[in-house]
Order: sequence, then structure tokens, then C-alpha cells
Amino acid sequence: MTNTSTLMSRLTAAEPEIIAIREHLHAHPEVSFQEHDTAAYIKQWYQQLHMTTRDFGDGYGFVVDIDSGKPGKHLALRADFDALAVQEGGDLPFKSQNPGVMHACGHDGHTAYLMVLARELYATRSEWSGTVRIIHQPAEEVSPGGAKSMLADGVLDGIDAVIGAHVMSNMPVGTVGYHLHETQTGRANFTLTITGHGGHASMPHLANDAIVAGSYFVTALQTVVSRRIDPFDTASVTIGSFDGAGSFNAIKQAVTLKGDVRVMKESTRKTIREQITTLVHGLETMFGVKAELNYDDNYPVLVNDPAIMTPAAESIAAAGVAKVFDCGPQDPSEDFAYFAQAKPAAFLYIGCAADDGQSHPHHSPDFFMDERALLIAAKAVGTAALNYLNGETK
Amino acid sequence: MTNTSTLMSRLTAAEPEIIAIREHLHAHPEVSFQEHDTAAYIKQWYQQLHMTTRDFGDGYGFVVDIDSGKPGKHLALRADFDALAVQEGGDLPFKSQNPGVMHACGHDGHTAYLMVLARELYATRSEWSGTVRIIHQPAEEVSPGGAKSMLADGVLDGIDAVIGAHVMSNMPVGTVGYHLHETQTGRANFTLTITGHGGHASMPHLANDAIVAGSYFVTALQTVVSRRIDPFDTASVTIGSFDGAGSFNAIKQAVTLKGDVRVMKESTRKTIREQITTLVHGLETMFGVKAELNYDDNYPVLVNDPAIMTPAAESIAAAGVAKVFDCGPQDPSEDFAYFAQAKPAAFLYIGCAADDGQSHPHHSPDFFMDERALLIAAKAVGTAALNYLNGETK
Amino acid sequence: MTNTSTLMSRLTAAEPEIIAIREHLHAHPEVSFQEHDTAAYIKQWYQQLHMTTRDFGDGYGFVVDIDSGKPGKHLALRADFDALAVQEGGDLPFKSQNPGVMHACGHDGHTAYLMVLARELYATRSEWSGTVRIIHQPAEEVSPGGAKSMLADGVLDGIDAVIGAHVMSNMPVGTVGYHLHETQTGRANFTLTITGHGGHASMPHLANDAIVAGSYFVTALQTVVSRRIDPFDTASVTIGSFDGAGSFNAIKQAVTLKGDVRVMKESTRKTIREQITTLVHGLETMFGVKAELNYDDNYPVLVNDPAIMTPAAESIAAAGVAKVFDCGPQDPSEDFAYFAQAKPAAFLYIGCAADDGQSHPHHSPDFFMDERALLIAAKAVGTAALNYLNGETK
Amino acid sequence: MTNTSTLMSRLTAAEPEIIAIREHLHAHPEVSFQEHDTAAYIKQWYQQLHMTTRDFGDGYGFVVDIDSGKPGKHLALRADFDALAVQEGGDLPFKSQNPGVMHACGHDGHTAYLMVLARELYATRSEWSGTVRIIHQPAEEVSPGGAKSMLADGVLDGIDAVIGAHVMSNMPVGTVGYHLHETQTGRANFTLTITGHGGHASMPHLANDAIVAGSYFVTALQTVVSRRIDPFDTASVTIGSFDGAGSFNAIKQAVTLKGDVRVMKESTRKTIREQITTLVHGLETMFGVKAELNYDDNYPVLVNDPAIMTPAAESIAAAGVAKVFDCGPQDPSEDFAYFAQAKPAAFLYIGCAADDGQSHPHHSPDFFMDERALLIAAKAVGTAALNYLNGETK
Repeated sequence: MTNTSTLMSRLTAAEPEIIAIREHLHAHPEVSFQEHDTAAYIKQWYQQLHMTTRDFGDGYGFVVDIDSGKPGKHLALRADFDALAVQEGGDLPFKSQNPGVMHACGHDGHTAYLMVLARELYATRSEWSGTVRIIHQPAEEVSPGGAKSMLADGVLDGIDAVIGAHVMSNMPVGTVGYHLHETQTGRANFTLTITGHGGHASMPHLANDAIVAGSYFVTALQTVVSRRIDPFDTASVTIGSFDGAGSFNAIKQAVTLKGDVRVMKESTRKTIREQITTLVHGLETMFGVKAELNYDDNYPVLVNDPAIMTPAAESIAAAGVAKVFDCGPQDPSEDFAYFAQAKPAAFLYIGCAADDGQSHPHHSPDFFMDERALLIAAKAVGTAALNYLNGETK
Repeated sequence: MTNTSTLMSRLTAAEPEIIAIREHLHAHPEVSFQEHDTAAYIKQWYQQLHMTTRDFGDGYGFVVDIDSGKPGKHLALRADFDALAVQEGGDLPFKSQNPGVMHACGHDGHTAYLMVLARELYATRSEWSGTVRIIHQPAEEVSPGGAKSMLADGVLDGIDAVIGAHVMSNMPVGTVGYHLHETQTGRANFTLTITGHGGHASMPHLANDAIVAGSYFVTALQTVVSRRIDPFDTASVTIGSFDGAGSFNAIKQAVTLKGDVRVMKESTRKTIREQITTLVHGLETMFGVKAELNYDDNYPVLVNDPAIMTPAAESIAAAGVAKVFDCGPQDPSEDFAYFAQAKPAAFLYIGCAADDGQSHPHHSPDFFMDERALLIAAKAVGTAALNYLNGETK
Repeated sequence: MTNTSTLMSRLTAAEPEIIAIREHLHAHPEVSFQEHDTAAYIKQWYQQLHMTTRDFGDGYGFVVDIDSGKPGKHLALRADFDALAVQEGGDLPFKSQNPGVMHACGHDGHTAYLMVLARELYATRSEWSGTVRIIHQPAEEVSPGGAKSMLADGVLDGIDAVIGAHVMSNMPVGTVGYHLHETQTGRANFTLTITGHGGHASMPHLANDAIVAGSYFVTALQTVVSRRIDPFDTASVTIGSFDGAGSFNAIKQAVTLKGDVRVMKESTRKTIREQITTLVHGLETMFGVKAELNYDDNYPVLVNDPAIMTPAAESIAAAGVAKVFDCGPQDPSEDFAYFAQAKPAAFLYIGCAADDGQSHPHHSPDFFMDERALLIAAKAVGTAALNYLNGETK
Repeated sequence: MTNTSTLMSRLTAAEPEIIAIREHLHAHPEVSFQEHDTAAYIKQWYQQLHMTTRDFGDGYGFVVDIDSGKPGKHLALRADFDALAVQEGGDLPFKSQNPGVMHACGHDGHTAYLMVLARELYATRSEWSGTVRIIHQPAEEVSPGGAKSMLADGVLDGIDAVIGAHVMSNMPVGTVGYHLHETQTGRANFTLTITGHGGHASMPHLANDAIVAGSYFVTALQTVVSRRIDPFDTASVTIGSFDGAGSFNAIKQAVTLKGDVRVMKESTRKTIREQITTLVHGLETMFGVKAELNYDDNYPVLVNDPAIMTPAAESIAAAGVAKVFDCGPQDPSEDFAYFAQAKPAAFLYIGCAADDGQSHPHHSPDFFMDERALLIAAKAVGTAALNYLNGETK
């Protein structure tokens, strides 16, 4: 077990800074792919520390490389920094100043803890070996995500392993959750436009009702999960949008549906895509409509490598940073999964639930994190990093 | 058979005026319940002729009474004057000057012919007995319609019979269609809001999907027509609007549907209302949703009285005004049906199809009438009126 | 108006014979296409009268020709003689002696009145002109019906018109119903076998559930009537059989559905066949099943010719045989429709409702006819026949 | 590790006997709850060995107790002996002599190996401590199963642990599969009778179509798995029987559905039962039918206790009896689950796949076991038993 006491002390001392950065970011949120000011703010902070940033990918993503000067392993640490198109509820002193935009998922906290952790890893670089790459990633929330183009640009070239973390408003402060192997769902999205033939409501025989065809599609779609998937496998298919607004007395010409698919296996992903495609073809024949399907397989299943995750979890528990527990698989998807596809990876969950007995779900206007989680995040990831870098076996 | 030659000659001479009025109205359309300028224009025209107008109902409706000075029967003639929320296509010299509003159903023509017919009936009042009430009605297109409040205000008190007419872009110019007994459908409209529980697309078990409940409702709704109605009866039920727009990754909390019902019998109307109400209650239980149904029985079935219609049709044919034929029942609904509920009535269809081989359906941006239909309308209704007023039997 | 008094008197005197024959037939019913003994019984009766019978068609059908010896029109009168696979309820003295077979539709009565009417027409042949062909038809109840092959064999060659009648347990005794033009529905039947892939109930992903595919088909089938047919037209589509019996713990490999279609227009018949065929093709794609459709367009719409029916109805009323009324169109189908397709025809409904306030629907084990209807049937058809044969205009 | 060599040698020598017993049982199969001759045959075999049998439960189940004479743990070993209502395919020399009944699941093999193992454990009782109870159980295949009443009768009173095994035709001979914790699905079955109102196919408005209501139910039922269950949980709901056979021209009065439910958690079982009950109530309202649901929660989830299973698996592997592997959870249900609910338990899978490249699924007429699996079963269970009885830790 490596000695982490210096880093831990420094992080404890820097807690007010982490919180201040997080609150600044919280007050100035920017939606995915439009994080111009956020990226500028983070870069300026590093520049003041004389730490060099380097852009990767199509968006506002960049890295900071920290070299211990000693040979060793190459570890990447990643945090995301985009916000959501949500109007913040409540009345925090650092409430969002951008109407309709909110850090309602906690990415402000991810970025804040990692900035300070980066500085302290740099400051203590004599105590560890190898190199650390700090990855500040944009656009986690929206397909195709920010990770993909950073990877295409080589952000993990030469890297041996990658660690990330997410605050969790449904886990208590003071806990760190983890899970081995398949951990977060993979995702696909699709858009389906069904075009019939409009007409007068009193003359259905002269029209071809797109709302009727769309409704039968939704009912038939239920069979994908109920009949086509091994009951031991995980799958969900949701129509999140049925856009068929019209008037009382006209038969609707066309409707557009948006769908969401979640899986825990690539074979399930393939089966669902095939089945939906088949249903759409059948729908065209059955109801004489034109059905245009745009199907986008995006985030992969997030797979944690036990070779990285198990020692990370053990080291965090041993260091007394938090109560560490296997939290099981998690329903949502994460584009950290792309990093985990490319390199052995570990993704940690940092409990941040409020003590108020209220529900503060991610993505809701009421999302709230207990800020004590931020120091725990810094210490947990810092501990896991030092353990990895200074450990004997990879 | 009464002598109509004086009236016919005067109408022929006035054809350019009818067309000019129609084109003025066409250029200045106003949507239902907002026909302020239209009503003012028509009233001013009567005032210049020293013919008195009298308001009826909640909207811009009014009447002009013409007394022959001789005892006899009391006949009402009705035309509607509202336009539609349609952006006019094409490029007529008298194209709509109000963006997004168009006389796309021909009510401009109805009003124009009736104004000139009124003037000429007044001018020839020595040639007929009894009285004629000219009814200029607003708001035919939109429930509850303009007829209802005019009736409540007594517009048909003391009247023995009422005649109306509608131009028809799917019948040739030179024809007048009619049908006895049930002729245009009665209508109901309903709004159904289905409320489940929103949630994350990856966690359907924590949500209650309103799009799924709405889609099953639409499929079950098909059984109302297919299983609950006597195959010899007429019924149609259309969901014209399925408003469930949302995002890929959220389960929709609520959707709103708009429905349209058409019938030819009051017993069918009752059955459909009961069945839809029952389906909605079942849906609530079946899917655990809250379903709020607002059901509005509006326009009645339009019933032509053979005692009025048969002599009207025969007199028009005998006078050589047009080729008269039984055109069968018509799918759309008409609030003239309220007048026909109150008094013996006849509603005529005046062919106005263009010769260009194109389709110009009512309510479309391409609606077009051959203006030769206007003189035919004036002569047909004028002939039927004189025949009624001067006829020996009612 | 021809003088019918001799015939009427003779029929009145023969009423006990009509009833006796009907009760004999009732006690000895035979199902469609198996009426060996029934035909033999009727033929023997004619042979005893020295009236010659001549076979037509593939089954037990035959005719008796009666020649007045004077030139004139050639009229056919038709009655059917098959029974149904129904176990008779109740306990009549002349209850069916054949288990599981019953004259539950009244064909025993049709045959009985026509036999006696034939004898009396023969006896009074000096009082009318032309010829009468008595048609005793088998197998009305079951597609393809007995009429078709008799027609193919020339049973109406040289005939000018044809008259038939049906007792009706929902019309009062003493009434005769009629309707002009389209009067009884045309029919199609289909069998649909849907084959998926059987399997263990706990492993749906390895099977392809035919019950699920069949159920979605039934729900989609509702749209044929609800969305594809003009609301002013008549159509019904029923799945009368969903044969998918199996066990709790196995996924069903195949199910067989039987369907019934009713229409009042040949264009509707065509639309429905096309739509069902289309739905079946779509189903195959949508659910990956094999769907085998056997579609049988059988009985046509029964169309009464006003040139035959109007004078028939008027003559019956004038003769005071019964209260004659327009009973409107009737839902069931009849293979007399084939005769009416071939020649001008009239099909009369003879009220036979019991006075007991109970419901005795045709085809039910409780079917019951008030036997006073039999003499009325003989007189009504006899009157219409003499009126036709002796009338000045056809 | 205990010394198993004496027992192993004796079992090897007895292999022909195991096979002979199995083939005798195979030739004389009896369906669940009717295994009179089978039980008599097994008991007689024990009586010849002077080993006493004792009946338990409502059926033909019984036990044989073997006492080592030394204090120690009390272990039960269980095999089932009922056959299935399947007509045997193929032409084995020992093919079933009872038409329509077949040992198509391998219970003949279970019983055969356990009989000989019992004898050899008795013969070698000086080499182990504690007691062994041999449980011969009837009626595993059919709810409520044979285990339940044996348990109610105290068959596991005083027992510390229980071990069972099942041959598996989809695992190679020479392998033994196992899984920890939840291993086979729990099950419920239900029967749903939906009663509408029969009628003539041409008059749907006078009937209430039970096939239509049943079909909509099947489509709505798909949402139980697709929308109500956590995607990380296991659930399947199958309608295995849709009994709605009828005729073309009648609307069906009533249909009966049979359903099968599989789960891996009691909470899922509860959710599904609630949801199906809710759907049925909603169906009654929605379609105006009477729906009678008989819902039978039967076999529990089979849960293997790691305290029993892990040493069992390790000892079998260590003894070189077979290749031991974690085969994951299995879809089918097993009433051994009741024993495992009552006491710590281990249920082993004994590979018996034929080498012929054909599929021989359990319950099919083609089911076939490679008989080399029988000795492996005896040795595997024997090894696990000695290891348990002689082991230092529980």
C-alpha cells in the first residue's frame, strides 16, 4: 500500500477551493457542445499554475499532463464539464445565472475536485512514479458525447489505465460505490418518422392515419423486451417522444417518434436493433405507411476492469476515505464507457445524497449535492491513482 | 309554379356585383368569432340600401327582415361569413390580405350571393307574399358555432322554414345537389389528457409511461367503430392529435389526445360517447394512469325536410337554373344543422368545381371556386324561396 | 290486379297439410350437403301427385315445372331444405330425432309451404298464364351453398324472374317485410394460420410466440372497418375462432384464426380483401412468422329488383294477406343472392315471432316459429306469383 | 478432503446396475401424482436390501434413512421419479411401454443413480459420520409438485442440508455445472376466462366479442415485462394457451387463456401478480367483459447456499469426478426449490448431452441422455455427501 498521507492532507486543506470552484461552475453552466466559457475558465486556472493544457477532439475538451519524472505507468483521470438544458429550481446562493441551463447532474463537482486533485498531484509528483493525464471532457450528456472525438484524436494513446467518478444523489455521503465488469448500460437512440396521408376526420377511407400506425407500432414495440430478449439479460426500450400534435378534425399525415434503448451486452444491442428494424419494415406493409428509421448506436456498456477496479476499491477502503460497497449495475449510460472500451478502466460512484430526506434525482430541477462529497471524490480518486502508480502490479 | 322571371333577370344583371362583393370578402377574411370587419362591411352595405339590420347571438351575427306587406309564410335564408386559419396558396388578384387567414371554404361566396339576393327580393317584394328573414351567421367553422347562440336569441322565432346553401368544389358548375332526410354528419369532439409518471428512460419500472398508455388507447379505440356500431349505421372516430413530444431519454409524464366523432343518428352518438367514456375508465385501471376526458357533443346531424327540400329541388330543376341531382349524404358536419333541428329546412349544394382538372378541396390552401357558381346559388335559392312563399301548400 | 281467390281458398283449406309436412321435416333434419332423406321425402310426395321432379346441381337439389299451357312469363319459386348442426332445446312433440341436428332456421317451413303451394298452383293452372318452376334447394347454410351448382347446371335458364321467402323470428306473425335494392349482406370467410416457433415458456427469446402474433393481428384487424371503409358504407369483420389451445409452460408454435366478412357493396368487399391480405403480409414481416391466408369470397349481396319486388309487395298488401312493411336491410347473408344475381328477384320476409315474449333467434337451440306464418307464406308468395304471371307489365 | 476412494470404486463396479434400473424405469413411466408402480418398484428394491422405507406427504413419496452410528451432520439427498405426458419418439430397446407417457426429463436416471448410491453409502457407513436421508420424491413436473406435501409432513425435520441433481441434455457428458445463490426461476401460473356475449358475426353491436378482448389483453400484457420490471431483473410472462376455437359466423362468447410467469426475485413475483391483476380489472371495464383470474404462485426461486454448494463443487472437482463449471442461472423452474427454501441446499447439473450433434431438449419426444452421466451423477453426489458429512466445517 502506497503512502497517501501527504496528498490527503493537502486535499483536506484545499476543500474550500474545491467548493468555490464548483460553485463558480454551478453559477455559469453551459449545455453540451457549447461549453466555451467553462473550458476557458478551467484552462486559465491551469495557466496561472503554469500547467500546460492541450486540446483534443472536436469540442472544448483538453488535457493536462503531469510527469513525475520517473518511469512508470501512465494513468488518465477524467472529469466531464457540461451542463443540462434544465431550469434550476430552488434558490441556492450560487444558483445558475444562465436561464434554462443547470448543472443538474453534478459535472461541476467532477471538474472542481479533479482540478484541485491535478494541482496537488503535480505538487506531490516526487512521491509517485509514471505520468498522470488529466482529461477535462465536454458534452457527456448528449450523443455522440465528448469522449468519442477525444479518443479519435488520440487522447488515450500511450495510456495504461483510466479512472473516472460520478457523484450519486441516491447514495449517502461518505460512501463510495463500485461494481466489476458490466456496470452502466449501453445506449442507442432512434428517430422514426411515419408518414401516411392526411385528410378530413370524417373521411378516414380517403386518408391513411399516421397516429393509428404510430400507436400500433408502440404497442408492438413492447414485444422486443417481452419476447425477444433472454429474461436473464437486461434491456429497455422507451418511446420518449410521440410528436403527433394536430387538430380535432383532420387525420394526421405524419408523426415522429424518438426512442431510447438500454442494454448490458453487445449481443442484446444487436438483437434489439434487428428487431426494431424488422418491426418498422412490417409496419410499412401492415399500414401502408412510409416509415423512416434513423438508428444511432451510441454509448457502449461501461465495463470496469477488475484489474483496475478491485485494487482501487480496496485502497480507498483501506485508506478510510469512505465506506466502499458494491452498488451493483446502474441503469443510466455514460460516455466514459468509450474510455473503458479503449483501456482498462475504473469508474467510481461518490455518494452525495442530501440529509434532508428529500429526493434530488439527477437531471431534475431539484438536483442537489452535499458538497462534502467533493473532498471524498478527490481523496478516493487520488488514493486509487497513487495506489495504481506506485503499486507493484498493474 | 310561381313566376320567377323578374327576380332571375335582376340577379343575372347583378352578377358582377355578386362577384365583386365575394372578391372583397375574399381579400379580407377573418377567422371564426373574430369577424368584426366582415360584419361591419355587410351591415354598411345594407344601410346604404336603407335596409335595417338586427343583431342576434353572442357573436357578429345579424338579420335583415324583408316584409312583402302581404300575409303569408315566414322564410329564413342563411349564409355564413367566417374564414379559416389557412395561409392562402396561389396568387389570385383578390388573394387574402390577412396572413394565415383564408376564405378556404367558400363562405365569402355564400355571403355575396345572399346579400344581392336579399336586395333583389326586397326590390321585387310586390311579387311575393309573407316575409323573408336574411340571416348572416358568423363562426360556422368552429365549435360551438355561430348558429347556436343566434337560435338561443330567437333568430327563428316565428319562422316557418329555413333554406341555406354551400358551394361544393367536388361538384361541377351547373349542378345543384340535394339529399333528403339525414344529409350531413353530426359531430362530437373530445380532449383526453393521460397522466402517468415521468422518469428516466433507463428505469421504466420507476415511471408510468403515458405514451404507452396513450398508444394502447388509440388501438382499443378502433373497436368502437369496428365492434360497437350496427354495420348499417354510419360512424367515424378519429384521433387527430397525439401530443406527446418529448426527449429521447425521458419517459413521458403526460400526453394529450384530441378526438373527432361523426354520426348520422343520435343513437349512434350516444353509443360512441358511452363507449369512449368506458374505454377511458378502463384505461385508467389498466395502466394506472389518470385520464381526464372532456367530451363535447356539438353539431347535430343535418336533416333536410322533404316537405321543404323536395319542392325546392323540383322548382330549381323546373326553372332550368341548374342540373339538380340527389348527391347522397355528405361526410362533413355543418352548424346549419341547428337551424334544421329547429325548423323544417333545406340545404342545397352548389357545384363550383374548377375546369382545370386539379383538386381544390375545401379547407386546403388551394381551394378555388368557379365564380359562375355564385349566380347559380342566388338563382337556386331565390327560386326555391319564391316557390315556397308563393306556393299553395307549405 | 289478378283474382287470387280460388288459390287463397285452397291454401286456407290445406293449412293442416302444410303444418304436418313442416313437422315431419322438423323431426327429421339433415345438415347441409347431406339431405338425402329429405330430398327423397319431398320427391316421393310430388310423385304421388304425378308431378315430375328433375335434379339440378351437385347436391340433392331438384325442380318441379308447372306449365299453365298458355304463353306467358316464366317464374321460379325457391325454398331451401337443409338443417343445422345444432342440438335442439325445448321439447316439442315433433322435436328433432337426429341428435345434434336441428331445423333451427325455418327451412322446414319454407319447404312445406312451397310444396303445398306448388300443388295448388298446379291444380289452378287454368287460372294463370306462363310457367312456374318450383326450386327445392339444398345446403343454403354452408359455403359454397346449394344455389351455385344448381345455377351452373342451368336451373334459371329461360326463367324471367325468381321469388323466395324466409320466415323471421324477430318479425310478428301477420307481417311481411321487404326491402328494395341491396337487402342482405354479401359475405367472405377466411382462415389464417400463423406459424411461429414453439418453445419453453421460460425462454421466449428462443421461440417465436404465435399467440402474441395472432393477438396483435386481431387488434390491427379492427382498423379495416374503423379506418379503411367509407363511414356511409356497411362492413363487418369478425374473428369467430382463435384456435390456440396449449399448455401453461410452452410457447405456442401455431394458431389458426377463422374470419367472417360482411358487406353491402362489391367495392367494399374488394377493399376488405385487399386490406386483410396486406395486414397478413405485414404481420409476417413484423413478427417473423409464416402466415397462410385462405380467403373465400362467397355469397353475394342479395339485391331485390324493384320491378319484381314493388308489385309483389303491393299485391300482397292489396290482397290483405299480411301487413306489408319495408323492414330495411338485414345483416345475415343468403345464397338466394346468387339467384338474384342471375335474374330479377324478390325475397320476402315472413314474420313468425312467437307471442311468448321470449327471444327465439335463428340458429339457436331455442329457435321457434309460430306456425301461422306458414299459411301466410304460401299466400304471400302465391299472390305475388299470380300477380306477376297475370300482370300486364313484367 | 475426505477419502472417497472406497465409495467411488463400489459405484464404478455398480454402473451396470444403475443403467439397468434406469432402463427399467424408462420402460415403465408414470405421470405425476400417479406413480404407484414406480414407487412400489423402488420400495421393493430397498426391502430386498433390508433397508426400511417410510412414506411422506400426500403422494407416493418416501424416504430411506441411513445411520452411520456416529454423531454428526444430517444430510438429505433427493431424486424425483415422475414422468411426463409425452409420446416417446425414437426406438430405444427400453422404450416406454406406456403409450403417451415418457421419462422425457431424466427423472428415471435421477432415481436410478440415487438408489445405488444409497445402497453403497449404507455399505460404507463405517467410513462416514452422521446420517443420510434418501428422499424419493414424486410429481416434480406438475404444480403443486411433490416436494410441498413431503415438507409439510416433516421430511426435512432435523436435517441440516439437502443435495439434489438434474441431468442436463445441453451440457456435455463429463461436466458438472453449478451456480451460487438464485439459480432456477420461480414460477406462477394463471388461468384467465374472459366472458363477453356471443352473437351472429354480422351483428357485432348486439354481441361482445371475447376474442377481441382477449387479444387486446395479450398485447397489453407485454407491458408487464417491458415497462413494470427493473431491466436488471429477470421476468417472463407467457400466454401458452389461447383457447378460443369457434366457427366462422359466430362471435365468440368466451375464451380461456393460460399464463406462465418466471422470476428470480420474490419482489418481481409480487409486482407481476399485482400488474396482471390490475390489467385484468382494467380489461373488464374497458371491454365490458367478465374476466375470472385464477392465479397460482407455485415453485419458488431455487437458491443454492454457497456454504453447501461451494465445498460440494470444489470436492467434486478435486476428486476428478468431472469438469466442474459455473453454468449460470437456468430458465426452468424446479420444486427442489421448496427444499432449498427450508434448508441450506445445493443442486447440481450433470451433463448428459448425446455426442450425435442432435438436439435432445428436455420434455421433447426426442429427449435422450448419454447413460455415462449416471455414474458421474452418483459419484458427484456421493463425493459431495462424504465431503459434507466428514468435513470439519459445516
